[in-house]
Amino acid sequence: MARNIYIENMPLEKALGLFMEHLNDCNWFHMDSEEIDVLSSLGRWTAEPVLAGRSSPHYIASAMDGIAVKAASTYNASEVNTINLDMQEILVVDTGDYIPPEYDAVIMIEDVNFINNQVQIIKAAVPWQHVRSIGEDLVEQDMIVPSLSFIGPYELASFKTASVKRIRVIKRPVVGIIPTGTELIETGNDAMVPGQIVESNGTMLAALCQDWGAVALRHDIVIDDKELIRQAVLEMEKKADLIVICSGSSAGREDYTASIVRELGQLIVHGLATRPGKPAILGIINDKPVIGVPGYPISAQLIFSLFAQPVLYKKMGQEVPELPVRECFISRKLASHAGVDEFVHVNIAKISDKPIAYPLNRGAGLSSVLVKSDGVVHIPRGTEGLDAGAKCQVSLTRSPRVIDNSLVCLGSHDMTIDFLIDILQREQGLRMISTNVGSMGGIMSLVRRETHCAGLHLLDYDSGDYNVSYLKKYLPQDKLLLINLVMRHQGLVVKKGNPFNIQGLKDLVRPEVRFINRQKGAGTRLLLDYLLSREKLSVQEINGYNREEYTHLAVASSVKNDGCDTGLAIYASAKVMDLEFIPIEVERYDLCILPDLISNKQLESLLAAIHSPQFKKRVSEFGGYELDRSGQIIYEYKG
Amino acid sequence: MARNIYIENMPLEKALGLFMEHLNDCNWFHMDSEEIDVLSSLGRWTAEPVLAGRSSPHYIASAMDGIAVKAASTYNASEVNTINLDMQEILVVDTGDYIPPEYDAVIMIEDVNFINNQVQIIKAAVPWQHVRSIGEDLVEQDMIVPSLSFIGPYELASFKTASVKRIRVIKRPVVGIIPTGTELIETGNDAMVPGQIVESNGTMLAALCQDWGAVALRHDIVIDDKELIRQAVLEMEKKADLIVICSGSSAGREDYTASIVRELGQLIVHGLATRPGKPAILGIINDKPVIGVPGYPISAQLIFSLFAQPVLYKKMGQEVPELPVRECFISRKLASHAGVDEFVHVNIAKISDKPIAYPLNRGAGLSSVLVKSDGVVHIPRGTEGLDAGAKCQVSLTRSPRVIDNSLVCLGSHDMTIDFLIDILQREQGLRMISTNVGSMGGIMSLVRRETHCAGLHLLDYDSGDYNVSYLKKYLPQDKLLLINLVMRHQGLVVKKGNPFNIQGLKDLVRPEVRFINRQKGAGTRLLLDYLLSREKLSVQEINGYNREEYTHLAVASSVKNDGCDTGLAIYASAKVMDLEFIPIEVERYDLCILPDLISNKQLESLLAAIHSPQFKKRVSEFGGYELDRSGQIIYEYKG
Repeated sequence: MARNIYIENMPLEKALGLFMEHLNDCNWFHMDSEEIDVLSSLGRWTAEPVLAGRSSPHYIASAMDGIAVKAASTYNASEVNTINLDMQEILVVDTGDYIPPEYDAVIMIEDVNFINNQVQIIKAAVPWQHVRSIGEDLVEQDMIVPSLSFIGPYELASFKTASVKRIRVIKRPVVGIIPTGTELIETGNDAMVPGQIVESNGTMLAALCQDWGAVALRHDIVIDDKELIRQAVLEMEKKADLIVICSGSSAGREDYTASIVRELGQLIVHGLATRPGKPAILGIINDKPVIGVPGYPISAQLIFSLFAQPVLYKKMGQEVPELPVRECFISRKLASHAGVDEFVHVNIAKISDKPIAYPLNRGAGLSSVLVKSDGVVHIPRGTEGLDAGAKCQVSLTRSPRVIDNSLVCLGSHDMTIDFLIDILQREQGLRMISTNVGSMGGIMSLVRRETHCAGLHLLDYDSGDYNVSYLKKYLPQDKLLLINLVMRHQGLVVKKGNPFNIQGLKDLVRPEVRFINRQKGAGTRLLLDYLLSREKLSVQEINGYNREEYTHLAVASSVKNDGCDTGLAIYASAKVMDLEFIPIEVERYDLCILPDLISNKQLESLLAAIHSPQFKKRVSEFGGYELDRSGQIIYEYKG
Repeated sequence: MARNIYIENMPLEKALGLFMEHLNDCNWFHMDSEEIDVLSSLGRWTAEPVLAGRSSPHYIASAMDGIAVKAASTYNASEVNTINLDMQEILVVDTGDYIPPEYDAVIMIEDVNFINNQVQIIKAAVPWQHVRSIGEDLVEQDMIVPSLSFIGPYELASFKTASVKRIRVIKRPVVGIIPTGTELIETGNDAMVPGQIVESNGTMLAALCQDWGAVALRHDIVIDDKELIRQAVLEMEKKADLIVICSGSSAGREDYTASIVRELGQLIVHGLATRPGKPAILGIINDKPVIGVPGYPISAQLIFSLFAQPVLYKKMGQEVPELPVRECFISRKLASHAGVDEFVHVNIAKISDKPIAYPLNRGAGLSSVLVKSDGVVHIPRGTEGLDAGAKCQVSLTRSPRVIDNSLVCLGSHDMTIDFLIDILQREQGLRMISTNVGSMGGIMSLVRRETHCAGLHLLDYDSGDYNVSYLKKYLPQDKLLLINLVMRHQGLVVKKGNPFNIQGLKDLVRPEVRFINRQKGAGTRLLLDYLLSREKLSVQEINGYNREEYTHLAVASSVKNDGCDTGLAIYASAKVMDLEFIPIEVERYDLCILPDLISNKQLESLLAAIHSPQFKKRVSEFGGYELDRSGQIIYEYKG
């Protein structure tokens, strides 16, 4: 079992420099061009200057609706000394009409009177007034645009106007993308077995190529067979300008990319001092670049953007568009190994005008992080990360308008928060960022002024009430508003048919029942602990009390996929997973808002969404909730 | 001849308000949606939340290449107390592989040794280490994105990952575009007669629709026949969400749009207090909006952007993307009528770090202005324009990077300046803005510090030399660098076969010869005056001495298109127009640079382009120039 375990840790700049150098050496950056019909040129870049094929106008033209005259024939005309011209002496013209050589001026229609087959002139015309000269817009052979100009709607219109028919444009580079992996399938389906994964990296990279102006050629999925992968590479080498091999770049058993590149060409880099993206591969086969991208989506995206994007743009004679940069304060400590360039995705929102960057989960396997991300913080090699509250520069991948119009809701998650997010986006044009940090996490985020609001369902063991005593303890001086969102049913989620015949919490201590818990600080975990102690059940006896999931849905999903047998969660999670639900308790789920941190307009939008009929309709259609108190102010402290 | 002369002057906000109100009343902004395959969803907007169809991963998976173990079996293992496990006790796994229920942890491949069919463990595994839980990325029924989210490469990849197959997206609104005009032809050709114009507005608006995410349906050109236009409108009303009638909106004889809208539906606005764009028409036919755009391209673009863009975006649930705004100093006085909202296109460049906005020609008929424009200055109604040097806010339509990397060359124009522009853009990534203001205009622009350099060919009547005496007079204290670009042949341009048998300047005074002159301040005009006085010829006797063109090419174009019979111009203009050339004089054409206004890098790029072999090659291939002195410093003043 020979495994390719040891890969380098090459610094990013060195790797990019080497890659560029090799491509320069084989003249790969030579810009290829092609001649196309002007009408298909939208969105392309010119490969040479575009010259007007014909003057516009190509004749002397009227610039107004009016009459063409010989200026001399109107000499001395005025309101008090009108001059009448016969119809034979003039020509009625519209804007753009040809002015024959016998005329040399146009009088606006508003300034003439037609009387008895004559035209009354009330003001003398100056020679060549309201007359467009030949080529006023574009003269034949004028350079309309130079090389490397973008062809948009206006360029297209100008080319047509000047009778340009065919033009030479930069050829779009072709990127051959080869997804490899025996575990991959093309489309998700219900028959998927454990271990199967839907191919998505190849699709993502192909879409990125499209954004960048390149053409993607995506190969069918190739299983982990060295000979088949080699054949795919050879096939793509004939068709494409750049070859990308997806996955197969780390040290796993079926990672053939590096050796194929070495055998067919030259391996330039294997292993990069970046995080994510370490197992990246760069090489050259027959003067064409080959990039091996790691299998995790965030790594694949990073490596492709770091290496494919600059070389593709350069080959098209363009520079990579700069992302706008915003200075933010990082919400929590970001540790980083000094030996690597680290790239961390963040969300961004303003908390009372202070822009905060919230690091997203750094797991490279999470496709959802790329979807959530508003931008990227680059922690350069040689530095050791950022302390909580430190300034950082974020390269924005989302529009500043969306970022500036964002609400943050850190705390316990509930399905109804998703309804709010959707209603806010749809009806109020307001984006809400919601991260599940549990109810206690939500309180702490409020204390640290990192969130506008928090979803809470914290049971007070002593009073049996929810949330208020916690707020009084942790936020004694803050203006705050606690609003009920829903009452919700918590219970045990079990498989269809309830194979373990679970009836209540007492069944959790049966050794054959595999339980899954929620993370520390989650309201549901507090509720469980409260209920267990009330029923005098011991946590030590519960098989799986220490296994943690972060959401209700994740608990239900684990039950459904046989990761465990039961867990405490809300009714909604059982419903969407088509599982059974043993009700245990009804709890109050409130939203705590700090009005000082939120603009009045945003607060109004949020309250409007909570009180909207759509919200109530969606919640009641969903089931497992009670809405009697929804929207009521549970507690308010005005400071 | 009933003419529709009197149109309103409705303020822009009022017109837009009325239009929006009518569309609201007929519920036109209702968002339509359609269900499509996920794989075709790139670039679309979601019409409802997209929920994960399946958890990802949908099984407990290894997060590393390594071995799956039961954590309990590794208890107490360390470097000094290694534990050996049999192969039956472990499972070799790659990243993403399924972890069956008998294992609960993964050890990285780097941390194990395979020895004699056993595996040596050097560190105890913690339960669930390097194991991805079910739904770690996305849990089944998780909301991946809410309504009205853009679907880019990452969303697409996430949808695939979560086995989402079909999604509901916002329908692209259909825009029916009807180009009208008997003068229009579809494609430019050599047989075009005076009065014919190539249709380009419809093409431009269709391309804008594409940029905005709408679908354009462009009707064939309809001649100026009311019944035919009416039929086209009725046809489009069935197929499209919004109807645009191009041209036919002013007071010309064939302007039927307003009356057709009035007959088929409701005319809301006819005539707008904007410049350009005055003859705009807004109406409703069968609950669908109709926009009549004026025939001039800049007016058409403005009206379409002011009215079609916001309503189309609103119908798609989006806001119109904001253009970045930059504060600039306007280079010259911009007069504006207080009664109108005026929109003026400008170029922008930095002159020694001061951003200057240069108003482009305000003729609405110039398609080239839209191509050249870097942005738009809006002069609101109720204000009277801007004084020279005043601050103004420019909405940018070109990338700030291009704007910030721009050289300005105001002065006399020459074909070789276009070569420089092309070489600078291609080889140096530097944009050069060149506007022909004549040699004297160039000197004045240098004096006012509005240009980095100027092309000059100003003959000194006394010395017979060029340029230097003018610079000493007008810029006596400034650091400057005068570099020869080319020597060029000036002569009389005449039609093929020289029908008037013109041999020299003396033929210009023949009354049958129609001459065309250059504008005042043009070096060529000064040269002409010098040569005429040398030959003692009287300007009064020259037929057309007062007719002015602004470029050599425009003079040649006028000769070619029988606008006149001859004019003084450079050889190049005769060559590209395929005309004959009677050489008269060789003159020196220099570039004057003010080094204080230009960055060192830009100066280097400019000098590199002038000295480049490509420049010399293109010039000598073109003919009519001499390069002996090209690149030589003619005069330098170091201050």
